[in-house]
Amino acid sequence: MSENKYVYFFGGGEADGRTGLKNLLGGKGANLAEMTNLGINVPPGFTITTEVCTLYYENDENYPRGLDEQVERALERLEELMDQKFGEIEDPLLVSVRSGARESMPGMMDTVLNLGLNDETVKGLAKKTGNDRFAYDSYRRFVQMYGNVVLGMDGSDFEKIIEAKKEEYDVEIDTDLGVKALKELVKEFKDFIKKETGVTFPEDPKEQLWKAITAVFGSWNNERAISYRNLNDIPHHWGTAVNVQTMVYGNMGKNCGTGVAFTRDPSTGEKKYYGEYLKNAQGEDVVSGVRTPKDISKLEDDMPHAYEQLVEIFEKLEQHYKDVQDVEFTIQQGELYMLQTRTGKRTAQAAVKIAVDMETEGLIDKETAVMRIEPKKLDELLHKRIDPDAEVDLLAMGLDASPGAASGTVIFNSDEAAERGDAGEKVILVRTETSPEDIHGMAAAQGILTSRGGMTSHAAVVARGMGKPAVAGCEDINVDYEKEEFTVDGRTIKKGEYITIDGGNGEVSYGIAPTIDPEIDENFKTIMEWADEIRKLGVRTNADTPEDAAKAIEYGAEGIGLTRTEHMFFAEDRLPIVQKMILTSDKTVREEALEKLQPMQKEDFKGIFEAMGARPVTIRLLDPPLHEFLPDHDQVLVEVTELRLKGDNEEKIKEKENMLKALERMEEMNPMLGHRGCRLGISYPEIYNMQVRAIFEAAGELVLEGKEVTPEVMIPLVSDIAELEITKEAAKKAAEEVLDEMGVELDYTIGTMIELPRACVTADKIAEEAEFFSFGTNDLTQTTYGFSRDDAEGKFLAKYIEDNVFKNNPFQVLDQEGVGQLMQIAVEKGRATRKDLKIGICGEHGGEPSSVKFCHRTGLNYVSCSPFRVPLARLSAAQVQIEDQS
Amino acid sequence: MSENKYVYFFGGGEADGRTGLKNLLGGKGANLAEMTNLGINVPPGFTITTEVCTLYYENDENYPRGLDEQVERALERLEELMDQKFGEIEDPLLVSVRSGARESMPGMMDTVLNLGLNDETVKGLAKKTGNDRFAYDSYRRFVQMYGNVVLGMDGSDFEKIIEAKKEEYDVEIDTDLGVKALKELVKEFKDFIKKETGVTFPEDPKEQLWKAITAVFGSWNNERAISYRNLNDIPHHWGTAVNVQTMVYGNMGKNCGTGVAFTRDPSTGEKKYYGEYLKNAQGEDVVSGVRTPKDISKLEDDMPHAYEQLVEIFEKLEQHYKDVQDVEFTIQQGELYMLQTRTGKRTAQAAVKIAVDMETEGLIDKETAVMRIEPKKLDELLHKRIDPDAEVDLLAMGLDASPGAASGTVIFNSDEAAERGDAGEKVILVRTETSPEDIHGMAAAQGILTSRGGMTSHAAVVARGMGKPAVAGCEDINVDYEKEEFTVDGRTIKKGEYITIDGGNGEVSYGIAPTIDPEIDENFKTIMEWADEIRKLGVRTNADTPEDAAKAIEYGAEGIGLTRTEHMFFAEDRLPIVQKMILTSDKTVREEALEKLQPMQKEDFKGIFEAMGARPVTIRLLDPPLHEFLPDHDQVLVEVTELRLKGDNEEKIKEKENMLKALERMEEMNPMLGHRGCRLGISYPEIYNMQVRAIFEAAGELVLEGKEVTPEVMIPLVSDIAELEITKEAAKKAAEEVLDEMGVELDYTIGTMIELPRACVTADKIAEEAEFFSFGTNDLTQTTYGFSRDDAEGKFLAKYIEDNVFKNNPFQVLDQEGVGQLMQIAVEKGRATRKDLKIGICGEHGGEPSSVKFCHRTGLNYVSCSPFRVPLARLSAAQVQIEDQS
Repeated sequence: MSENKYVYFFGGGEADGRTGLKNLLGGKGANLAEMTNLGINVPPGFTITTEVCTLYYENDENYPRGLDEQVERALERLEELMDQKFGEIEDPLLVSVRSGARESMPGMMDTVLNLGLNDETVKGLAKKTGNDRFAYDSYRRFVQMYGNVVLGMDGSDFEKIIEAKKEEYDVEIDTDLGVKALKELVKEFKDFIKKETGVTFPEDPKEQLWKAITAVFGSWNNERAISYRNLNDIPHHWGTAVNVQTMVYGNMGKNCGTGVAFTRDPSTGEKKYYGEYLKNAQGEDVVSGVRTPKDISKLEDDMPHAYEQLVEIFEKLEQHYKDVQDVEFTIQQGELYMLQTRTGKRTAQAAVKIAVDMETEGLIDKETAVMRIEPKKLDELLHKRIDPDAEVDLLAMGLDASPGAASGTVIFNSDEAAERGDAGEKVILVRTETSPEDIHGMAAAQGILTSRGGMTSHAAVVARGMGKPAVAGCEDINVDYEKEEFTVDGRTIKKGEYITIDGGNGEVSYGIAPTIDPEIDENFKTIMEWADEIRKLGVRTNADTPEDAAKAIEYGAEGIGLTRTEHMFFAEDRLPIVQKMILTSDKTVREEALEKLQPMQKEDFKGIFEAMGARPVTIRLLDPPLHEFLPDHDQVLVEVTELRLKGDNEEKIKEKENMLKALERMEEMNPMLGHRGCRLGISYPEIYNMQVRAIFEAAGELVLEGKEVTPEVMIPLVSDIAELEITKEAAKKAAEEVLDEMGVELDYTIGTMIELPRACVTADKIAEEAEFFSFGTNDLTQTTYGFSRDDAEGKFLAKYIEDNVFKNNPFQVLDQEGVGQLMQIAVEKGRATRKDLKIGICGEHGGEPSSVKFCHRTGLNYVSCSPFRVPLARLSAAQVQIEDQS
Repeated sequence: MSENKYVYFFGGGEADGRTGLKNLLGGKGANLAEMTNLGINVPPGFTITTEVCTLYYENDENYPRGLDEQVERALERLEELMDQKFGEIEDPLLVSVRSGARESMPGMMDTVLNLGLNDETVKGLAKKTGNDRFAYDSYRRFVQMYGNVVLGMDGSDFEKIIEAKKEEYDVEIDTDLGVKALKELVKEFKDFIKKETGVTFPEDPKEQLWKAITAVFGSWNNERAISYRNLNDIPHHWGTAVNVQTMVYGNMGKNCGTGVAFTRDPSTGEKKYYGEYLKNAQGEDVVSGVRTPKDISKLEDDMPHAYEQLVEIFEKLEQHYKDVQDVEFTIQQGELYMLQTRTGKRTAQAAVKIAVDMETEGLIDKETAVMRIEPKKLDELLHKRIDPDAEVDLLAMGLDASPGAASGTVIFNSDEAAERGDAGEKVILVRTETSPEDIHGMAAAQGILTSRGGMTSHAAVVARGMGKPAVAGCEDINVDYEKEEFTVDGRTIKKGEYITIDGGNGEVSYGIAPTIDPEIDENFKTIMEWADEIRKLGVRTNADTPEDAAKAIEYGAEGIGLTRTEHMFFAEDRLPIVQKMILTSDKTVREEALEKLQPMQKEDFKGIFEAMGARPVTIRLLDPPLHEFLPDHDQVLVEVTELRLKGDNEEKIKEKENMLKALERMEEMNPMLGHRGCRLGISYPEIYNMQVRAIFEAAGELVLEGKEVTPEVMIPLVSDIAELEITKEAAKKAAEEVLDEMGVELDYTIGTMIELPRACVTADKIAEEAEFFSFGTNDLTQTTYGFSRDDAEGKFLAKYIEDNVFKNNPFQVLDQEGVGQLMQIAVEKGRATRKDLKIGICGEHGGEPSSVKFCHRTGLNYVSCSPFRVPLARLSAAQVQIEDQS
C-alpha cells in the first residue's frame, strides 16, 4: 500500500523535490531542492509539505498518520549523510526549523535555530569548534527562541534577563557577555520557562524537533499572518511547509562569512553581480547594520575560492531559472553553502533592461520578456517623481490625482498664479477646490494642490487632462484665502514659500524636493514593440487637445477613444459665451452664443484630427450638467448677502441676485444623476447640433486638403434606446447637411457610451442604433455600486479598503464581479443584435492592468486611457494574450 | 380557390361577423354584427376588415385583389335587403362610411355621411320624405364632408361660404337657411371644390363610395391619429376597419328621435337606465347642446312603443355582454334602430357596485367581478378630493406628492403653523421646500405645499408617511418668506388667505374648494374579500407609526414591508439629540446621545409591533445621509456672512461658524450616492447597534407580556456581500445579547434591501447571508437609469414623458425592461443560493397595478406599499392571478 508522501528530502546532490512543486513544498523548500538537484552545495535537510499543514488544521490539529515515521526516516538519512547524530555529544546534528509558504510572507511566521543543543551537546559543539563562547551563545539563543516560539512566551521577558545579566557583569553589549555569563543565562532562561509555563525545557532533541515543527505550523494561523494573508489575497487554505535543515555557521572564524547577492543589478538592470557580505558573521548581522558589509566584488580578494564557486553558481542559477536570482549564502570554515535562492525583485528600469538583455542573450524569448515587466511599474518610468532616496520634509498626503512631481511657490489665487506663471515663475496653485474659473491659473501652474475633492473632482480631471501633476483631497491642510496661507499639522505655509507635490503618490512636501526624470530608453521601446507584435486588443487614448493626442501617439496610441468636448468649453475666452448660452431662456440668444462657439470648437477638432491622421477619433458630445460652467453658488450667495446688508446700489444687487436665482434654478441635488449627457442633447438640441456641425466642418476641411480623418461621434449617458434614436437621428442629419454643403464624402459612425446599468441590460435594443459601444466605467461603477466617486473616495471608501471590506477601490481596479458582469451582459446582448459591434472602454480602468486583461477576455476591441497609461495598456494587452494562449 | 374574406355583411337578422372578431372588424363593426345576430334592429351594412387597411399600406396604398368584387356583392345584397338602389332617383340607397379600429380612437379618424346623394337622388329623397329642406341640407352636408374628408380641403373654407350665404339672406343661424339658399350652397360648394382641387364632385354614388372608403383608410395615418396611437400605445400595424351602413335619420319629423343611454347609472352604479334623447334630431344635436335633451325615462311617455323596444334591447344586451352597455339609437319614423353598443365607462364607485350587483344577479362570477375594477381608480375611493363638479379658482398645478384634498390658511413658517394648527386652526404650510426642522409644522398643518422638490423630496416623503395631502414642486409659485406671501401668475396670496390643495392631482386653488369624502361601502369590502380569496401574492404596507400600521390593517395589509426608522429621528424632541450625535467627533458623546435615543426608538417599535400583532414587521436600519438631520447649509452660510459683516460678538460667530464647518465637512456632491445606508452602519456601528437593541427590547417586552411579534431587521443599500456580513453579524450579536439579557426566545430574521444594480447581479452571493430580500425599487430605478428622482421628475423627465421619449415615469410605473430585468436576475440568483428565499418589494411601485402584476410574475412573495394603496395592491394581485390562470 503506497502512502502519501509528506516529507521531501534534499542533500547529497539529490532531492525528492523541485521548483515545480512550489505549491507543495513552499518557495524556500522547492528552491532548496532544485539547487540540490543542480549540484549546488546546500545544507541537507527535508521539507514537510504544505499538505501536512492543511491536514493538520482540517483534522483538529492532529498530524496525518505516517508523518512521524517519514520524519524519522528523513532524520536518519540526514544523520547518515552528515555523519552526525541528533543528541550525540561528540558531533551533534544541529538543525534549523523554518516556515516556507507558496508565496513569501516575510517575517510573519516563526523560525527556530540551533535546534539539537542541550546541556550535553553544547559541550560537543564547543569542543568541535574550539569556541566555547560561540557554543553557549548558540545554546542561549536556542533556549530563548524555544521559549518564545514554541511556548509562546514574551520575547522581551528574556531580554530583561539579559539586561540584568549585563548590569551584573557591568558590560554594555550582548557580545561582551562571557562564557560564564552565557552559561548562567541558559540556566536562568530554563528556570524562567519552568516558572512561567510549568514546562521543563526538553533536553531530548527529537522532542525539541516535534515541538518546533508544531510551533511553525501553528504560526500559519497567528494573528499577524492571518491579517497579512487577508491584505495580500493569499488563501488561508494554502498552508505553510516546514523546512528542517542542517545548521551552518558563518561566524565560526575568519574563514567564515555570510552574504546576500543578486545575479544582476536590481536597480539599473546592469549585468554585474550585486550584493554584500560580512566575514565571520551571521545572516542577521548583514541585515542589522551593526557592522558595515562589503561589496560582493571584494569577496574575490578575501576568499577567492568561495568567490569563484559563487560566480559559477550565479551563472548556473540564471541559466537554470532564466531570471535574476536573489540568493543567501554562508561560508562555513571555507565551504560555500547556498541557503536560499529566489527571483530577484527589481525596479521598473531594471526589469525592462534585464528582459531585453536576456532575450538578446538567448536566455528567454520575447513572450517571456514581455511577461517579465509588471505593467503598474511603468508609471515609475513615465513620470517625473520625487527621488525616492531623497530626504523630504513631508507635510501631508493627499490623493494621487494626476501623476508627476512639481515644485513651486505656493499661490492661492488663480489670477495671481496665471500672472506669475506666465511671467516664468514656477508656482503651485493651492485651492480648497477648483472650478472652471481657475483654468488659467491651473494652466500656468506647475501643479495643483486641493484640500477637497476626489479623483474626479474638477482639479483632478482637468489636471490629468493637462498632464499636470496634482494632489487632490488633501484634507489635512487648511487653506485660508484671506491670510493667503495654509496650515497643516501646526505648521503654517505662507504664500510664496516653496512646496513640492508628487501626484504619483499624493505626497506634499516642504521646499524643493529633488526629482528624477522619466527614463524612456531603447530597451523600453523594444519591449513595447514586442508587446505590440503579440497583443490583439487595441489601445487608444483619452485626449482633449492636439498636444495630448500627439503625446499619446508617441506612446503608441492607435486612436482616440474619448475626446471630452466640455473641457473646450472651460477655456478662458469661451466661458463667458458658454455662460451666456446657459443663462438665457431665449433660444435665439442661445443660438447666437452657439454660433460664436462653433468656429472655436471646429478649430479644436481640426487640431485633434490633424494630430491623429487617419486614426479613429471618438468625440463625445457635451456630457456634464450645465451648471458646472457657472460660478460657485455659495460664493454668489455670500456676495448677495453682503451687498444686501451693505445696501449697495440696487442695480448691482439685482444683477447678482439674478445670477443667484439662475444658479438656484439650475442647482441639482445629485448632479451626477441629473440633467446631463444625452438628456442635455434632447433638451437643447441646438447644443449637440453645433458640436456635430463643428466636428464635420473640421473633418470636411481636412478631407478637402487631401487628408484622411475617421470621426466617431459618441452620445453619452444613454439609458434607453429612445434617447439614442433621437440624438443619433439629429446628429446624422447635421452631419449629412455639413458634408453635403461641403461636397465631401466621408465614412463616420455614431455610437454610444455604455455607462448606465440600464444601458447594459438593454444593450440588445441599443445596438439597433449604436454603431459602436464604449464603456464608461467611471459612471458605470458609480451607478452599479450606488456611490459617487466624489463622495466615496477619500471618505468611506478609503475606510472600506483600509478595513478590508473591499479588496480594491473599484474606481481604480474594475470590479469584475459586479460592473464586469454588467459589461459581459452588454457585450453579449450588443453583439447578439450587431454581430461585429465594435466595443471599447474609455473609463479610467482602460489603463489599469487587471482591468485591461478583463476587457480582452470579455471580447472588447480596444481600451482607451490617458496618454501616459498607453504603454501600460499595450503591455497588459500583450500579457493577457500570452497568458490565455499558454 | 377560396379567396380571403375582406367584407363582412350584417343585416336582415344575420351577420357574417361577431364580437369575437373585434381585431378584424374593429369595435364598432364587431358589435353591429353581434347586435344583428341577436335580432336587434341595426341599419344593415357591411364592414371592410382591418386586414384590408394593413394590406393597403403594405402594398403601397393598393387594395388587395378581390376586394372590389366583394364590396360590389355586399352592396348588391344591401340594395336587395333595403329594396333601394344606389343612384336610384325614386328611393336612393344612402350610406354612411365610418372608421372603426380595434380600440376606440374617438374623433381621430374620418366619417362621411349621406353618401349616395347627387343632383338627381336628392330629389328622390325630398320627395320620399316630403321634406325639401331636409334633403338639400343633407346634400349640402355631404358635399361639404366630401370636400373636407375625401379631398382634404380645409373645413373652415366651407364655413366661410355658409357665412356669406347667411349674410346674403340676412339670417342668423344655419337652420334658418331655406331650400333655395341650400341649393345655391350645394352649387357653390361644388364650384369651390373644382376651383381649389380641379376635381369635379362625382355624381356617381359608387365613385363617391370608393373615394370615401379610401379617405377613411387614409385617415388611419393622419397626423393626429398617429400621435394618438403613440400616446395610447396602440400599435400602428393594427389598422382600422371601414363600416358602410345604411343611413337612418332621427330628424325626419315628430315620430323621429335620437339618443344615447347606459343600461345602468355609470356614476353611481345604480340599476336604472340612464341617458337622454331628443325628438326630431340628429345625433350631433344631442351632443352639441343647442337643444336640451330629455331624460331617457321620458321616452316612455313620448314614444311608448320605441321605449318598450329599447328596454327589451337593454336587457338583451346586458344578458348577452354581461356588462353595462353604452348605446346609441335613432328612431326613424317610429322605428327604433341601434347604431352602436359598447361597454360603458363608469366611476370607481359605480364599477364596484355594478360588479357586486352583477355577481349577485348571477350574471358574472367573482373572478369576472374582480377583473371589472380598474385598480388605479380605487384612489378615487380612498382619499378625500376636490369635488370634480365644483368650480374652483385654480392657481397652479404641482406634483401630486401625497393624495387627499385639504383647505386652510396659508402659513409660511413652521413654528407658526404648529402654533395655529395646535390651536385648532386649519392651516396649509407653504414652503419653498421642507427640512427636518419643519416636521412639527407639517404635523399640525392640514396639508403641505412646496415650490421645489420632486416626488421623493422631504415634503413628499414625510407627507405620504403622515398620510397628509401634499403638492410638491409647484414651480409656478414664488414664495417670499420675508413678505409672507406667494405670487403666482401675477396674483399675490398673503398669509392667512385660504387655499385648497389636492394632492391626488396636484391642484392648488384659491379659497375653500368643496371636497368629497372617500366612499368605502359594503360593495367595496365585498370586492376586496373576493380579491383576497383569489390572490397568491402577499400585500404588506410601508408604515412608520402605529397609526399608519393600524390604518393599513384596516385596508387589509398582512404585515409591514418597510418601517423607516429615520422618520423617528426627525421628531421635534429628538432632533437636537440626533444633531448632537452627528456633530461630535467624540465617540463617547455619540454613545451618550444614542443612549438617550434608544428608549424613544424602543417605544416607537413597541407601538408598531403592538399594532401589527403577530404579523411580520420589517424594520429598516438608518438609511439617509446624516447631514439630512442638520440645518440647511445655505441658511447657515447667510447667517454667518451677516454676523461677520455686522461684527457681532465673537462667540456667537464662532458657534455658527463651527456649525457651518461641520456642514461643509459633511456636505456631499451627490447625497443619493453618498455616505448612507449600511455604509453608515459600518462607519458608526454604534448607531445600528442602538437601533437593533431598541427593536429587540421592544419585541422582548411584548413577548414577556404574552404577545406575539415577528421582527425582520433589514439592512439598506448593500452593494457587496461584505457589507451585509459585517452589519448582519453585528445586528445578530446585539439581538442575541438583548434576548439573552431578557431571557426571551424569539424567531427573527435579518435580510437586506436589494436596491443597487450590483446587489442584483451578485444576489447569489448576497443570499448567502440575507434571510430575505426586499427590492427598493426607488433607489434601484435611480441607479439603473442614472438619474435621481429629485433632479429628474418635474424637470427633464417630465419633458421626456410629454415628448413621448419615455412612455411612463419609471418612478411611478416599474420599468420592467431595465429595472425589472435586474430584479429577475436577482430573484433567480438569490433563489439559486437559498431556495425558499422570501422576496418582497417596498419601493413605491408596490402600489402600482402593472408593477404589482410584474412582481407576481417575477415570483415575489409580497408587495409593500403605503396604507392607502393596499386595496389597490390586493386587487391587482388578484387580477394577475386570474389573468395568468386563464
